[in-house]
Amino acid sequence: MQNIRTDLAVEAHEMSKKEAKNTSEIEGVASEFEERNGISVTTVKILNENGSKILGKACGTYVTIEAPDLKYNTETYEKVCKIMADEIQKMADITSDSVTLVAGLGNRDITPDALGTSVVSRLIVTNHIKTHLSHLLDKNMSGVCAIAPGVLGTTGIETADIITAITNKIKPQLIIAVDALAAADINRISTTIQIADTGIQPGAGVGNNREGLNEKTTGVKVIAIGVPTVIDAATISKIEIPEELAPLMVTTKDIDLIIERTSKTVADGINMALHKGITLHDIECFVG
Amino acid sequence: MQNIRTDLAVEAHEMSKKEAKNTSEIEGVASEFEERNGISVTTVKILNENGSKILGKACGTYVTIEAPDLKYNTETYEKVCKIMADEIQKMADITSDSVTLVAGLGNRDITPDALGTSVVSRLIVTNHIKTHLSHLLDKNMSGVCAIAPGVLGTTGIETADIITAITNKIKPQLIIAVDALAAADINRISTTIQIADTGIQPGAGVGNNREGLNEKTTGVKVIAIGVPTVIDAATISKIEIPEELAPLMVTTKDIDLIIERTSKTVADGINMALHKGITLHDIECFVG
Amino acid sequence: MQNIRTDLAVEAHEMSKKEAKNTSEIEGVASEFEERNGISVTTVKILNENGSKILGKACGTYVTIEAPDLKYNTETYEKVCKIMADEIQKMADITSDSVTLVAGLGNRDITPDALGTSVVSRLIVTNHIKTHLSHLLDKNMSGVCAIAPGVLGTTGIETADIITAITNKIKPQLIIAVDALAAADINRISTTIQIADTGIQPGAGVGNNREGLNEKTTGVKVIAIGVPTVIDAATISKIEIPEELAPLMVTTKDIDLIIERTSKTVADGINMALHKGITLHDIECFVG
Amino acid sequence: MQNIRTDLAVEAHEMSKKEAKNTSEIEGVASEFEERNGISVTTVKILNENGSKILGKACGTYVTIEAPDLKYNTETYEKVCKIMADEIQKMADITSDSVTLVAGLGNRDITPDALGTSVVSRLIVTNHIKTHLSHLLDKNMSGVCAIAPGVLGTTGIETADIITAITNKIKPQLIIAVDALAAADINRISTTIQIADTGIQPGAGVGNNREGLNEKTTGVKVIAIGVPTVIDAATISKIEIPEELAPLMVTTKDIDLIIERTSKTVADGINMALHKGITLHDIECFVG
Repeated sequence: MQNIRTDLAVEAHEMSKKEAKNTSEIEGVASEFEERNGISVTTVKILNENGSKILGKACGTYVTIEAPDLKYNTETYEKVCKIMADEIQKMADITSDSVTLVAGLGNRDITPDALGTSVVSRLIVTNHIKTHLSHLLDKNMSGVCAIAPGVLGTTGIETADIITAITNKIKPQLIIAVDALAAADINRISTTIQIADTGIQPGAGVGNNREGLNEKTTGVKVIAIGVPTVIDAATISKIEIPEELAPLMVTTKDIDLIIERTSKTVADGINMALHKGITLHDIECFVG
Repeated sequence: MQNIRTDLAVEAHEMSKKEAKNTSEIEGVASEFEERNGISVTTVKILNENGSKILGKACGTYVTIEAPDLKYNTETYEKVCKIMADEIQKMADITSDSVTLVAGLGNRDITPDALGTSVVSRLIVTNHIKTHLSHLLDKNMSGVCAIAPGVLGTTGIETADIITAITNKIKPQLIIAVDALAAADINRISTTIQIADTGIQPGAGVGNNREGLNEKTTGVKVIAIGVPTVIDAATISKIEIPEELAPLMVTTKDIDLIIERTSKTVADGINMALHKGITLHDIECFVG
Repeated sequence: MQNIRTDLAVEAHEMSKKEAKNTSEIEGVASEFEERNGISVTTVKILNENGSKILGKACGTYVTIEAPDLKYNTETYEKVCKIMADEIQKMADITSDSVTLVAGLGNRDITPDALGTSVVSRLIVTNHIKTHLSHLLDKNMSGVCAIAPGVLGTTGIETADIITAITNKIKPQLIIAVDALAAADINRISTTIQIADTGIQPGAGVGNNREGLNEKTTGVKVIAIGVPTVIDAATISKIEIPEELAPLMVTTKDIDLIIERTSKTVADGINMALHKGITLHDIECFVG
Repeated sequence: MQNIRTDLAVEAHEMSKKEAKNTSEIEGVASEFEERNGISVTTVKILNENGSKILGKACGTYVTIEAPDLKYNTETYEKVCKIMADEIQKMADITSDSVTLVAGLGNRDITPDALGTSVVSRLIVTNHIKTHLSHLLDKNMSGVCAIAPGVLGTTGIETADIITAITNKIKPQLIIAVDALAAADINRISTTIQIADTGIQPGAGVGNNREGLNEKTTGVKVIAIGVPTVIDAATISKIEIPEELAPLMVTTKDIDLIIERTSKTVADGINMALHKGITLHDIECFVG
């Protein structure tokens, strides 16, 4: 299909519709837009093989939250956390007995790729406390484990293999995989969050997750959460770019700040989804 | 003149010639290209007001070193250090009695802006040793001070004011100001070093150096050394970019690595210029 | 006097009284203890040359705030900020027209020495806004500049010279110098804050401030604020320590966390002192 | 046995001999001292249950390399790397077909605990290249994987469980576990390297490795490599320390530098052990 690289279903959908030169829906895809509390939420459902082939994404549900002022507006941050928590809870049945493994993908030493590792460092991790000191925890808090497995180039091991191995050992009911994404539109950097119940497919994502990280490879439902942090240079300069530039990924100058702010938002959305009834103020006291 | 933003005289020169639709030289500008040891060195001299106006840069000499494989090739790094040392020594008369103040401009917390602060952390600083323990130093080493003054937004003080104040106090014969630059061509990120005997003019540069940092403001010759680390998004997508994108600065995904490698090169070029006879191996032992 | 190294007047006072084997006050020293809102506040005043000689500290007022649970108790943090603001305001007349230069001393690359640089990165800096855009600021906010001058070993310039030079240029009415301190008692690490109206004397302090940073050297009142982050190994093992160990400075394993928490406290105490009426929540929104 | 905390067999041995007030060897322990190329190498072998009980360490071989000037002497660094490589190769049969999993234990956000994570970031990782692109590698290079699993408090998972799970998946022939250690003598910080063929026992080590990481728990030989970075405050002040101080771990002020230098040494010793014939210059080119 399109040869402009994007990890966002919502962008793939737009481009496919444009390419098909029709305004009616693509067969095998359903989409819905709503505004919640001033924040745009678009849900794209890929329903069958045809939809999957045309959009170049696995079948499943992709929720996109768009909030242009997320980077600096505290109220927007609070609203987005709430929407994230709701959507995660819709995709997975989380009870106080659940154990969830959150995997922060990507390379912590490359700023635009550090979203996942930054998110896991802000989670309220409870699995070990529930095992040994459960009376110390509020009973609404579920079991949370969090790892930052690294990338193939620095570990020598496929990321999916590390997560599958740990999953086999600790037997969570759910995996949440967080990763930086590539978008086609530079305006999406830091303003868009995608939550998908499909996990990560082979070859997708900025990181080296070639084997895929999904229910098929791990045996457990995988929710993938991502925020665009890079775009293809090929994408931004839509014409006449020299060959050698094509694969170059670019990001914005304020990427350090963006990773800090968006990882806080994503982490707190996950914290609220997994620990029912917790407030952002509670999280502040736990995580610092 | 051109409304594509660049801090590189060599790019301003190219664009001006293209705009003038002639291949002959612009009046008031002289340029010279040579290959030294396999490395391209272009010298642009702006000779008068006309050249200055057309190129949008102060009168003076701008040496541009281009080395596409600087990021990963150790031999290129060594050659570039040598060329830098030679060019700095051509611009300033450095003896073992000289005192030079090196100022690393920019914001250390924004990766693409951290070139200057990273360079000063790799310099062989000797001024205090020469003052108190000069017998411990090789007699070819000159006096070097190094500061990272910060940026207006975090200090509340104009950078030029900080450097001028310190200059008045310690009375160096030379200032070298190192800063990250903006280029028009994304291929120049990390591959180009510009050395100019003009200092930094009001309003130029990525940092907030609105007052300028030059012989006029400081009373001392100022050599400005920079490496492009960002480009305007407006530049990369040459057409039909929406207004709101125009001022956005973009950089490449591997900017962390680029800052590490290029700051080492720039620092060692300065170290070799200021400490005659020192080798890269000596520097390794001093700086670690 | 005592050969156990301490930067705290309150410790020097205790040791001197113990050495003098009397419980009455040392001639030339007055001290006062009070508990405010559950926090211990001790004020030691060195009144004359005799007191100065016996305690080994300059004449002036040293306020010590002690809060053993500062590291993890949010309420303690809030109380300590308030006490700090009150004490700073007692020592200096701060109005909305004041300009204060805050200097964060020490080496940012040595964790136990990074208190000062960490504090300045959390200040609400306003001087440039007051100069150019004063209508944007609440009228209770005073002018604040902040610099992290580095240490002699990395700049080649005496820290006092850098600060004096900048002081001559921007003409603040007050300097606040923040630095990590050495204490005699390991229990004081991260639990004690000293505020002194004496500035920093030649040779004192962990940093290399050999020339002193005080009203005499700068022409402006200097308030010195410090938190103990290291102790002499000689101090901790009170007897029979081998010679070669004597100058070794030790710190606690959780020093990274300590620097983070105490620098937030010190910064916010200064923010509240300089910007009257500002709340901790306001600061959070400004500084992030 | 002794209630002074040490992870070093060589210290436990000394203290046990002192306590036993005899100079003859403890039954069940054999030790040997030699100087190699100017570097002290002590081998303590715990041969049976009696030796194990008295020294409080598992049966096996503990090699201690002592090099007081390791922190700043380049020649010492080179010699120590060579000795490390030799000792690792004595403990394990490494061929070009071997696969080794190196685990960097500890918490990267606590400087004195970051030795392990710092070491793995400097390794030449080859497992993925051998699998897919083996013709690109020199045939003497063995397969190396490297992970930094995190600590129980931040992952919610026992470290030994993570490593065992990954071991079951990728089936290495050898595990090398690197961790920061606690010593009794402050002079050992940064100057001593311990290599043991016993793995890590339940409860030992600075990190939270309560389940042990050894051949019994993983099914694979585990070589443990550590460097002391902390001591008990109780240890340093040999007498009359108040109860509440007892568990406090202290480190030296220059711990940032120590972690940088010693992690480079340990990493390069491992690199040389696993990639036969590689030189330190080769490593520099690989790792940068």
